[in-house]
Amino acid sequence: AALGARKMEDYGRFLALLASTLLVGFVSVILSLVWVFHYREGLSWDGSPAEFNWHPVLIITGFVFIQGIAIIVYRLPWTWKCSKLLMKFIHAGLNTIAMILAIVSMVAVFEYHNAKNIPNMYSLHSWIGLTAVIFYSLQLFLGFAVFLLPFAPLHLRGVLMPIHVYSGLTIFATVIATALMGITEKLIFSLKNPAYSAFPPEATLVNCLGLLLVIFGLLILWMASRPHWKRPPEENAKILRPTEATAEGTEVESAMTNSSNADKSDLRTNTEAARKQNLKFDEAGQRSTM
Amino acid sequence: AALGARKMEDYGRFLALLASTLLVGFVSVILSLVWVFHYREGLSWDGSPAEFNWHPVLIITGFVFIQGIAIIVYRLPWTWKCSKLLMKFIHAGLNTIAMILAIVSMVAVFEYHNAKNIPNMYSLHSWIGLTAVIFYSLQLFLGFAVFLLPFAPLHLRGVLMPIHVYSGLTIFATVIATALMGITEKLIFSLKNPAYSAFPPEATLVNCLGLLLVIFGLLILWMASRPHWKRPPEENAKILRPTEATAEGTEVESAMTNSSNADKSDLRTNTEAARKQNLKFDEAGQRSTM
Repeated sequence: AALGARKMEDYGRFLALLASTLLVGFVSVILSLVWVFHYREGLSWDGSPAEFNWHPVLIITGFVFIQGIAIIVYRLPWTWKCSKLLMKFIHAGLNTIAMILAIVSMVAVFEYHNAKNIPNMYSLHSWIGLTAVIFYSLQLFLGFAVFLLPFAPLHLRGVLMPIHVYSGLTIFATVIATALMGITEKLIFSLKNPAYSAFPPEATLVNCLGLLLVIFGLLILWMASRPHWKRPPEENAKILRPTEATAEGTEVESAMTNSSNADKSDLRTNTEAARKQNLKFDEAGQRSTM
Repeated sequence: AALGARKMEDYGRFLALLASTLLVGFVSVILSLVWVFHYREGLSWDGSPAEFNWHPVLIITGFVFIQGIAIIVYRLPWTWKCSKLLMKFIHAGLNTIAMILAIVSMVAVFEYHNAKNIPNMYSLHSWIGLTAVIFYSLQLFLGFAVFLLPFAPLHLRGVLMPIHVYSGLTIFATVIATALMGITEKLIFSLKNPAYSAFPPEATLVNCLGLLLVIFGLLILWMASRPHWKRPPEENAKILRPTEATAEGTEVESAMTNSSNADKSDLRTNTEAARKQNLKFDEAGQRSTM
């Protein structure tokens, strides 16, 4: 009973955090729309500043909000009854949508720059932003080839999973950092009279938008890196796994999740050797702990 | 023998990564000095732009480079023979130096702004930067009170350690994001003829500096989040720990590191319950896996 109460309490804490994250994400998207419609030229696709405005709106909607949801989609407890394959499709699908929106948002900037004869790709924002989109696409392609298609050997999946997790979380953080640089650029360039330093209402609104993006990122990274909120291993994989020595041969993700429960009494007195022997398991085990 | 070879290979990989990280960090500091001495007004403390220049130099030296080293100091294999307490002092000491340099670098900006009648604290850079310094100071104070002073109960240390690790890594990432915003601001404000968009040599140099800061951050976060590179548990704690049921009562950090080796054969068939029971251990176990 005490265990059940603790479980419910933990579940409630997850839901509260998820609700906060969704709220912060939604408000960020709304603020980006208020920014471009109330303070700027709105949205259009004609080489005008209104075409540029698609850039912040699509980046915040796709590359921040949807990417963030894609990262924590395995953490939603009500999806644990769905097959792992379905969840992988949802994870890959959300990331594909985010990638497409990011690319469209870049096209909007290039077209606006070209129409106005503004140079492309000179700023640190553009350098890091383009690099992030390229690595994001690579990550999506590799993730699809290794974890979704059934051809990759399980050993390879185990080796690549920690790299996939690390890349995913750091690309996400880099995207938010790039958005903050973009906000800084745009406010300096477009606020002229009064200037950014005179702190007009638009500056307050967009600074708050920037803060919300940071908070959204922190919430996603917290939920993604709590080991007790990760998806439990597949039932069949658990039953199929006869001894921990052959764990490698079963569904890799499950082996990773279970590896911390492996029955190795000798390890307690011989920890150093065990640490090294367990190197592969430890690494695999970080799938959800970063 | 094969185990020894693997261990050496892994050690070599760590050293190569550490050397790259130190190189990237050193080059970043050098580039910040080239920036202010070759392209800007040098360094002084007289309210002139040369006083402002302390800001990027001290942030990159202290708040990025030294903070980064402080994060991975427990990972250095040759320190594993030193007492944990000594390493905690080094970790806290480096972070204290970083905090002092960050504060001095902020004073330089405020004095420069006031001398030139430039408003303070209007930009997103300043909002997030000041917040980062405040949370960094809080983190240092709490870390000192809980993990260095001998008064905190081990249970509390276990609960707070994952939060300490999460806060540490996310504050570090936020500091780098803030530095990128600062670089963007400074290049736009100070490059006038030719402008930033005309891409003079100074822009190339400082964009490269920004890229190096991102690479430095990625290297530190990789080293900090590999579980097999963490400091092994204390010998005496290992011997003192009689059964895993009382693990909580021994040196907490060791209990965390060992928790993945706990002897619980029943868990394999009853994973869901075990996951919940193990909630605290799992959480504690992420000390070095984020």
